[in-house]
Amino acid sequence: MAKKGVLTPQHDDFPRWYQDILNKAELADNGPVRGTMVIRPYGYALWERMQAEVDQRIKAAGAENAYFPLFIPESYLSRESEHVEGFSPELAVVTQGGGRELAEPVVVRPTSETIINAYFSKWVQSHRDLPLLINQWANVVRWEMRPRIFLRTTEFLWQEGHTAHATRQEARDYAAMILHEVYRDFMESVLAIPVLIGYKTEAERFPGAINSMCLEGMMRDGKALQMGTSHELGQSFATMFDITYLDAEGTQAHVWQTSWGVSSRMVGGLIMAHGDDQGLVVPPRLAPIQAVVIAVRDADGVVGACHRLADALAAAGIRARVDDRTGTGFGRRATDWELKGVPVRVEIGPRDLEHGQATLVSRIGGDKQGTGQGAKQTVSLSAAPEQVEALLDDIQQQIYRDALAWRDSRIVDAATVADVQEAAATGFARIPWSELGPEGEAALADDAVTVRCLQRPDGALPQGGDEADLVAVCGRSY
Amino acid sequence: MAKKGVLTPQHDDFPRWYQDILNKAELADNGPVRGTMVIRPYGYALWERMQAEVDQRIKAAGAENAYFPLFIPESYLSRESEHVEGFSPELAVVTQGGGRELAEPVVVRPTSETIINAYFSKWVQSHRDLPLLINQWANVVRWEMRPRIFLRTTEFLWQEGHTAHATRQEARDYAAMILHEVYRDFMESVLAIPVLIGYKTEAERFPGAINSMCLEGMMRDGKALQMGTSHELGQSFATMFDITYLDAEGTQAHVWQTSWGVSSRMVGGLIMAHGDDQGLVVPPRLAPIQAVVIAVRDADGVVGACHRLADALAAAGIRARVDDRTGTGFGRRATDWELKGVPVRVEIGPRDLEHGQATLVSRIGGDKQGTGQGAKQTVSLSAAPEQVEALLDDIQQQIYRDALAWRDSRIVDAATVADVQEAAATGFARIPWSELGPEGEAALADDAVTVRCLQRPDGALPQGGDEADLVAVCGRSY
Repeated sequence: MAKKGVLTPQHDDFPRWYQDILNKAELADNGPVRGTMVIRPYGYALWERMQAEVDQRIKAAGAENAYFPLFIPESYLSRESEHVEGFSPELAVVTQGGGRELAEPVVVRPTSETIINAYFSKWVQSHRDLPLLINQWANVVRWEMRPRIFLRTTEFLWQEGHTAHATRQEARDYAAMILHEVYRDFMESVLAIPVLIGYKTEAERFPGAINSMCLEGMMRDGKALQMGTSHELGQSFATMFDITYLDAEGTQAHVWQTSWGVSSRMVGGLIMAHGDDQGLVVPPRLAPIQAVVIAVRDADGVVGACHRLADALAAAGIRARVDDRTGTGFGRRATDWELKGVPVRVEIGPRDLEHGQATLVSRIGGDKQGTGQGAKQTVSLSAAPEQVEALLDDIQQQIYRDALAWRDSRIVDAATVADVQEAAATGFARIPWSELGPEGEAALADDAVTVRCLQRPDGALPQGGDEADLVAVCGRSY
Repeated sequence: MAKKGVLTPQHDDFPRWYQDILNKAELADNGPVRGTMVIRPYGYALWERMQAEVDQRIKAAGAENAYFPLFIPESYLSRESEHVEGFSPELAVVTQGGGRELAEPVVVRPTSETIINAYFSKWVQSHRDLPLLINQWANVVRWEMRPRIFLRTTEFLWQEGHTAHATRQEARDYAAMILHEVYRDFMESVLAIPVLIGYKTEAERFPGAINSMCLEGMMRDGKALQMGTSHELGQSFATMFDITYLDAEGTQAHVWQTSWGVSSRMVGGLIMAHGDDQGLVVPPRLAPIQAVVIAVRDADGVVGACHRLADALAAAGIRARVDDRTGTGFGRRATDWELKGVPVRVEIGPRDLEHGQATLVSRIGGDKQGTGQGAKQTVSLSAAPEQVEALLDDIQQQIYRDALAWRDSRIVDAATVADVQEAAATGFARIPWSELGPEGEAALADDAVTVRCLQRPDGALPQGGDEADLVAVCGRSY
């Protein structure tokens, strides 16, 4: 179905394939200010679905949404020394406001630990105010020298959670719970992207954190994408912003904190984890359009039948859309929906209608290694909603299975730095952290290979980055 | 039920009452940079509900969400002369990025006509690309000299719609449709705020628009709040950004455009349109919490019964919350929920439970002129969901009726500028525009009274601000 040459094949030039898909599937454009992006309606619809799914999980985790200002006084950032060192090179600074030079310049938030903790300091008085669990959906700005749309942009969209707890253990448990029950669950069950979880090494830690946990996905070029992070902040911000509470024994104590976030970078992850030479592949649970009902041509009541079927699909809870643009050739439209990665096409032509039937075409083939020509089946119009629903479930599972099998085939066990370097050309390498260590990590850095995370040999999250017998998962990253 | 003196009475000092309610109901705080605000979880929950309701209506109007950059090159704003004149005094300008002075400073968007139309110019080629209907939810910045939380803040949250059409009539019709079917419908049926609609005079028009339509609500101090606007932009941006299409006859033509928006200012409108001396009054259709089930004290299975009832309410589609903080006195908690304007309190104590009953307390009294002591009724636990649902419907209707009756009692017909000035002390004045005219308007301005809108004598939206026999509705405004 797909026209040859719509996209540069992945195998020929993966970065160009990525750029092609952004353009051709109408996902995003570069903004006029270097490093900024314009997210087009279809790209934004993907982000909105991600927001809805993540937001629901964050609320289930007990956090409440709030909104803090975009502008932060420069002096706030300086209060935490590692934090300001980490972010200074990336700041955008407003020096003029309302037609005048500002007495104190303000920075555009690169992240909101400082401004949010300034308010936590007011809001937390007693142990009864804890835990304080806050989330915000916002845009943030980090000046980007080598921008790439969705992956590294000067402005991006994200959520950032910020919490305060009475004890270190509680804080750590909450950060780990967010990692597992909000992020990992969303990424695996909705995005259908298998993720490796673990701790960052000291070199890769968030500026100001005592521990950073992360989720790493593998893209179809074998590179790693950090899909999200959850940090233990310890008491550094609590000390700098004087966030104390009166505990049950009547003693003043500093709180223990976490912060955690996922961003519009996940849209890039979605594209690169599942896309193929025909375009995007969007897992049904995420898809803004799960099934498109295409009128093959305008004849004999075909368009009306398409709308009736779409209504029936919607009534069955399926996100359906009709394509009745019969002024445009059928092949071109089918290619377009394939590019956009819509999981199921439901095609109705005059002959289908005559037989009371429709043709279902899955976005992915039986083995995903095919030509992109999806599996086809003919169904009766009356059975279509049920069949589409079942097909969507199958596709969701299959996309995950394919991604998992493919990723696991590209992870090798390594014993030396040289082994790791070799493996990182096509995927990830696992090496005991006791073998690699900070020195090996530094050696890999010369070759742009990094430790993506430290995890237990069975892949589980350790109790901390300093647990014995951890494995370092290494790779090149976005 | 309410403790005396929690809030400054409205009648004594309305601005202080407003400030008190922001603090006591935990809605928002001032941010550290002058004019910015911190929206606290309960304030943000109100905004989230507004977003959800408006977003649904915008999508039904056929517009799609997208996202454009926060940063706009300074040169973009200058392209439309009225637009740049209007916004220049309010701009925040970034002059440093990534540790260096920027070659071209960038402005933080005060609104996005310029940057969005730069992309419309790429996306619109043929009449088949029209109408182009785009919306974005975003933060914007307009440096504010006399800030007031939610009403006038340096940074605020809003949606801005931007559309391009083939003809002037289509653009005007679409702008008017947004006014009626998205904004007015939301404000009246969800916010329960009656709004006057009409055209702005030339003096009050949006910079760059050929016509501005608006919705004006009356607050409980008799002042007007502009709740939203919908503009006809004509072809000025289309000319400056070269947005042309090939029409069906093969001729190049400029598009006709609209833009329209509502913002977090509506939260301020909600507070001031319905609030009383006991606190917020939130209409049920908007309320993040429609019914709070309060355990009067922790005895004899009361807390368990509260949770079971809340589950039953939730199952009936009611947004319910349990208050089982029995460590805090019942009176204090009841006052707190009254402050937060939750429409219905469901109280269960040991004696209620013994009789299989609960007490329903409405946030508003039978006549709204009462002591804030809401109407009470006893219901059986099994009938409670049905009864609460019916009560919520009643409350929604009554809040609207009260606001309408109260507003209409404060609108007078005036014949002279002096009449208008007098009436504006307590509410709105209506005067034939042919009597007032731009000269009378200028005279009123000295007294801080403005023409809120021009409308037909029966209150309907005219075909334009230049229609004959229009009435000017005048008042003081926020």
